[in-house]
Amino acid sequence: MEAHIVMTVEAGILSLENPVFHTYAVAATIMVLKMMVQPWITVRRMLKVRAGFRSPEDAKKSPINPNPREGQLDANEYVERSRRMNLNDLESIPGFIAAGFFFVLVQPPLLLAQILIWTYVVARAAHFLAYVTAQIHDIRATCWTFSSLAVISMSMYVLVNIV
Amino acid sequence: MEAHIVMTVEAGILSLENPVFHTYAVAATIMVLKMMVQPWITVRRMLKVRAGFRSPEDAKKSPINPNPREGQLDANEYVERSRRMNLNDLESIPGFIAAGFFFVLVQPPLLLAQILIWTYVVARAAHFLAYVTAQIHDIRATCWTFSSLAVISMSMYVLVNIV
Amino acid sequence: MEAHIVMTVEAGILSLENPVFHTYAVAATIMVLKMMVQPWITVRRMLKVRAGFRSPEDAKKSPINPNPREGQLDANEYVERSRRMNLNDLESIPGFIAAGFFFVLVQPPLLLAQILIWTYVVARAAHFLAYVTAQIHDIRATCWTFSSLAVISMSMYVLVNIV
Repeated sequence: MEAHIVMTVEAGILSLENPVFHTYAVAATIMVLKMMVQPWITVRRMLKVRAGFRSPEDAKKSPINPNPREGQLDANEYVERSRRMNLNDLESIPGFIAAGFFFVLVQPPLLLAQILIWTYVVARAAHFLAYVTAQIHDIRATCWTFSSLAVISMSMYVLVNIV
Repeated sequence: MEAHIVMTVEAGILSLENPVFHTYAVAATIMVLKMMVQPWITVRRMLKVRAGFRSPEDAKKSPINPNPREGQLDANEYVERSRRMNLNDLESIPGFIAAGFFFVLVQPPLLLAQILIWTYVVARAAHFLAYVTAQIHDIRATCWTFSSLAVISMSMYVLVNIV
Repeated sequence: MEAHIVMTVEAGILSLENPVFHTYAVAATIMVLKMMVQPWITVRRMLKVRAGFRSPEDAKKSPINPNPREGQLDANEYVERSRRMNLNDLESIPGFIAAGFFFVLVQPPLLLAQILIWTYVVARAAHFLAYVTAQIHDIRATCWTFSSLAVISMSMYVLVNIV
């Protein structure tokens, strides 16, 4: 007598073989990289203009600051722009990553997931370009609105499905 | 001969059928929504007073800003309050969501999880009300303390159980 | 006739029995605690100098502020330093926690995971010490660079493995 036991193990929801999770993981990792790169842009701008420092000790003579001069601690718009962009990332990206995680867990249709997730990524890329090139408020605000609504939609979808 | 194979599959820890995870997922999603809504409050306040803008280009004439005037880039307390509330969210909510995730994984008793998680949510709601209505520091600080201790307790519980 | 059914259940990736996930969970929880403790340092500094408040209502007479005086709402470097450190945490720690989560899921070699994760934690601890004691920019920047590159490396490793 022979016994065959066949077990079909469904790929878990939090598996990269789940296309919804895969989409989310790729997008979230791109956004983490974006969030980690912005401070480097701030650093590059600070070193380029040797200004816009924030801590008193940064105005001291050192290899980073070989020729200290007056006013290096004053706000510098070129540097501040990158800092505002960074703060804007902080207001948005961790929320997207958290919302997306729960969104994946309620198993949305793949197409809906792709639309909301890539809308977010594209809107943030457009927001970056609008901000870094100082486009008028309306353009930047439009990009931001798409990204914000994508995250809010994901979270509302989660609540409707689990409460 | 008959063979009965009975497999009891326990609901996974990261499943919405796990009541601890469900509690966490509902609370975390509510907090993500709170975090995403605060910038909209900032936007609404900026448009209401047509002031408190931060980027030089926002003072240009555009549909959002049809009648530019002096001082639109100056700090405006009505707008700044919402920005401070947003920053306060950023200092707290991502920490809560991360701490809660690991807390769920160490499988705390349901009652403990409910107490810590809902203490956090209620304390943040009270903090929001105290901040937006400019209650004295002591009231806001008390709300903030409860929310902070809830997150610290969850993280300490995790460390004690896994280190 | 005897039947032996032996089932070897591999520990799941997101299980604390997975040493890569365990390493990540310990490090991430420590970093959440660090992120939650910094605001307490700000509070302690504010109460010590009774200055550096940010909201107008905080300058009112209350148990926290029994003797109001002029200038309590002005920026105070002793307090601002802790606020800058907090903002620096926000720019780094949520990114580390999110990057680490996806990093664990692509199942990196344990040694690589330990190196990147503990490099991050040690670099952030060193960054904290350099910042709180106002070391020159170069020292703080070096610590920050190690922590940032650890997170970027984890995210790049993820992208290479899943895209």
